[in-house]
Amino acid sequence: MKFDYVVIGSGPSVYRFLLGMQNSGKKIAVVEKNRFGGICPNEGCEPKIFLEGAARATLTSMRLQGKGITQPAKLDWKELIQQKNKAMASFLNNMQSMYEGLGATTIKGEASFVDQHTIEVNNKKITADNFVIATGKKPHPLNISGHEYLLTSTNLFELEDTPKNVAIIGSGYVGMEFATLLSAAGVKVTVIVRSGQPLEGFYSQHVHQLVDEMKNSLGINFIFNTNVTAVTEAQTGYEVQSANGNLGTFDKVINASGRVPEINALKLDNAGVEYSNRGIKVDKYLTTSANNIYAMGDIVDKTAPALTSTAQFEADYLSALLTNKTTEPLRYPVIGTVTFTFPQLAQAGISIDKAKEDSNYSIKDIDITQGDFLYAGTDDHARLSLVFDKQNHLVGAAEISQTAVDDINALIPVMAIDVDPEVWKEKMIMAFPGLAYKIRTLI
Amino acid sequence: MKFDYVVIGSGPSVYRFLLGMQNSGKKIAVVEKNRFGGICPNEGCEPKIFLEGAARATLTSMRLQGKGITQPAKLDWKELIQQKNKAMASFLNNMQSMYEGLGATTIKGEASFVDQHTIEVNNKKITADNFVIATGKKPHPLNISGHEYLLTSTNLFELEDTPKNVAIIGSGYVGMEFATLLSAAGVKVTVIVRSGQPLEGFYSQHVHQLVDEMKNSLGINFIFNTNVTAVTEAQTGYEVQSANGNLGTFDKVINASGRVPEINALKLDNAGVEYSNRGIKVDKYLTTSANNIYAMGDIVDKTAPALTSTAQFEADYLSALLTNKTTEPLRYPVIGTVTFTFPQLAQAGISIDKAKEDSNYSIKDIDITQGDFLYAGTDDHARLSLVFDKQNHLVGAAEISQTAVDDINALIPVMAIDVDPEVWKEKMIMAFPGLAYKIRTLI
Repeated sequence: MKFDYVVIGSGPSVYRFLLGMQNSGKKIAVVEKNRFGGICPNEGCEPKIFLEGAARATLTSMRLQGKGITQPAKLDWKELIQQKNKAMASFLNNMQSMYEGLGATTIKGEASFVDQHTIEVNNKKITADNFVIATGKKPHPLNISGHEYLLTSTNLFELEDTPKNVAIIGSGYVGMEFATLLSAAGVKVTVIVRSGQPLEGFYSQHVHQLVDEMKNSLGINFIFNTNVTAVTEAQTGYEVQSANGNLGTFDKVINASGRVPEINALKLDNAGVEYSNRGIKVDKYLTTSANNIYAMGDIVDKTAPALTSTAQFEADYLSALLTNKTTEPLRYPVIGTVTFTFPQLAQAGISIDKAKEDSNYSIKDIDITQGDFLYAGTDDHARLSLVFDKQNHLVGAAEISQTAVDDINALIPVMAIDVDPEVWKEKMIMAFPGLAYKIRTLI
Repeated sequence: MKFDYVVIGSGPSVYRFLLGMQNSGKKIAVVEKNRFGGICPNEGCEPKIFLEGAARATLTSMRLQGKGITQPAKLDWKELIQQKNKAMASFLNNMQSMYEGLGATTIKGEASFVDQHTIEVNNKKITADNFVIATGKKPHPLNISGHEYLLTSTNLFELEDTPKNVAIIGSGYVGMEFATLLSAAGVKVTVIVRSGQPLEGFYSQHVHQLVDEMKNSLGINFIFNTNVTAVTEAQTGYEVQSANGNLGTFDKVINASGRVPEINALKLDNAGVEYSNRGIKVDKYLTTSANNIYAMGDIVDKTAPALTSTAQFEADYLSALLTNKTTEPLRYPVIGTVTFTFPQLAQAGISIDKAKEDSNYSIKDIDITQGDFLYAGTDDHARLSLVFDKQNHLVGAAEISQTAVDDINALIPVMAIDVDPEVWKEKMIMAFPGLAYKIRTLI
């Protein structure tokens, strides 16, 4: 078999890439060793956001108990997972044929490079003029005694019985979001944090407030500055050990200690593709050290956040580059990031923590809970921080609230589009009292 | 007493007006016959959106019953109203002093014009060089037998016991939103619609879907093409009569048949100010037929929607005009409108119904429930319609969904700011899977 392009991996970036290449006349193959569609729809953002609907309604009703709601909603994890499986089944089952509909040949199997123009899949050789590596990341393995007892986030999405008592090792957004979802289902959750603060990269003041609210409202237990050293089977569940001693016994122990590049099986050395433990090295054109091999998505060693949205942006760029629609280098735009915790954290642009240490920026910390901003009676303690540059242009924003993601998304155009704030006020009126309305008084 | 400006009314537009006039050195009085702050914070959008938080959580949990939620939340109207009163008390009690803090003299009483430079309040004459009329609208009185038994939306916001069975006369956004709120509290609601369709001005297809969902999910009863002719006291509650006969017996009957200009007491003829039953006539500079008298907000006879947001926009314009910051006529921007029903309707720009009859526009009707748009597992049937002009620029949008207001607010900048859609895609990535993310594939 000989192709113009072989794409290794089949996540959301590959979908966008195929869309972009659709009228190029190129012969393209997509090789996937796991489930077509990749992490996001199968075991990442899409099932997560599905579960979030019921969890948020439940948590909001819990929060309003005694404040208008006399009996909070009750969420059943098993029923919710079954509902999710049902709702997503046809969508997920059609992924492979959807890719074929976009003109690609799809191949199921694990790819490894033989040389710069050849890979091997299922013991067969496939040659191509060019390759695009989009294998993404996988859960970071914990090399501790008893690691075989650990579940991953993927297992959680398939867990059909509701545990009573769960320990989550790791406090990135996967760990923190699952802590939220599970506690909405009545599970007693303990989060074990390696450092003193979860959610590295989010605004530290907001993270502290989030931890307080997760402790006080959701009853989640946090153990800080602790490395898990072993997991042992107990009579009922599993014991988690650390250098500081036994951390308790849990029905389930989740490894959410991060994600690492899905790189080893690729045998990149055979193709002369450089990489590190952070991923594959690319230049500003997403080209690897082998000039016919490109990379996109989470597998790329980059400072931009490893998100579905970023991966799709890269795919749009790469297909434009390869079809001669652009010759410019890749420039990352203003990128919004969010944790679907309760409350949510969201941010975009310059980080507040960094801006505080840089005299080029001024910061406004705003309590948006009160007055005209008293939003929707959800007993929220909403805080928004804005970063302005010397020209008084909005260049960063971070929020903690039950609607932070929508608020920050509403602010992103103000940061990204070079338009005078007065023009924003003259040209549009957001629906009132929708939350975006408040923008006009903030910029 | 002699002032540079006397403002009659004290709603949100007046707050914005005082802000805009703050450094003008002008002597300003604000006359209010009712509660300072006007309708929106006291008995309009702000208490509405407060109640909406608990109602939405409850309705979402009801909708997800058997789909992840085994027991929906229970909302208690009395407790919720008490919570609202508590949360808003300090804010509302401080309105008058807030206005004084902005430099205004506040006067409690009903104003009527004596001549073009004089009003009378509490039997005292007050003279001013200029007047700004911002008295807004009041509930449309129903001149039927038994009208004394009718409650208004204002009464509902203060109702501390939960009725079992309520009839709402009228199906504008006030009637439809209260139908939603009350049914979240377990009240059996009947909406009596004068015509064949509620919510005039919203996209008819979406209104039909909304009525279906309110019937089927919330159990709300709709009676169409019916005028109420009388309300009579019954043994338990009130009987509602129409030309078609008796419509039933209800604990409470609500008059939500519309709002009319708060005009009569003003004695506008004494000042030479022209008006009709639609409100006060103004030119493009918000100036009435008397050249020292201005009007803003809902009292203005206008085609732009009578909203708090529009009123505040007019106030910003008027203070800019009067402080010589602009000499331009008022130009209304793209304005978002919303009904906080369940699901929500929201829209902005060119109306879909009108665009369908105009060959200058093309329309995209999109089911945004499925695939990449499967949002947050709330079992939503979300539909978005977009209007494009001949240059393929987005000029109108309407949505029905549980998050329509945030979606439409996210699309408003695309309509309002003259930027190539490609630039939107290049310059920003909304937080994924936040709902605004989908914009990039729609424009």
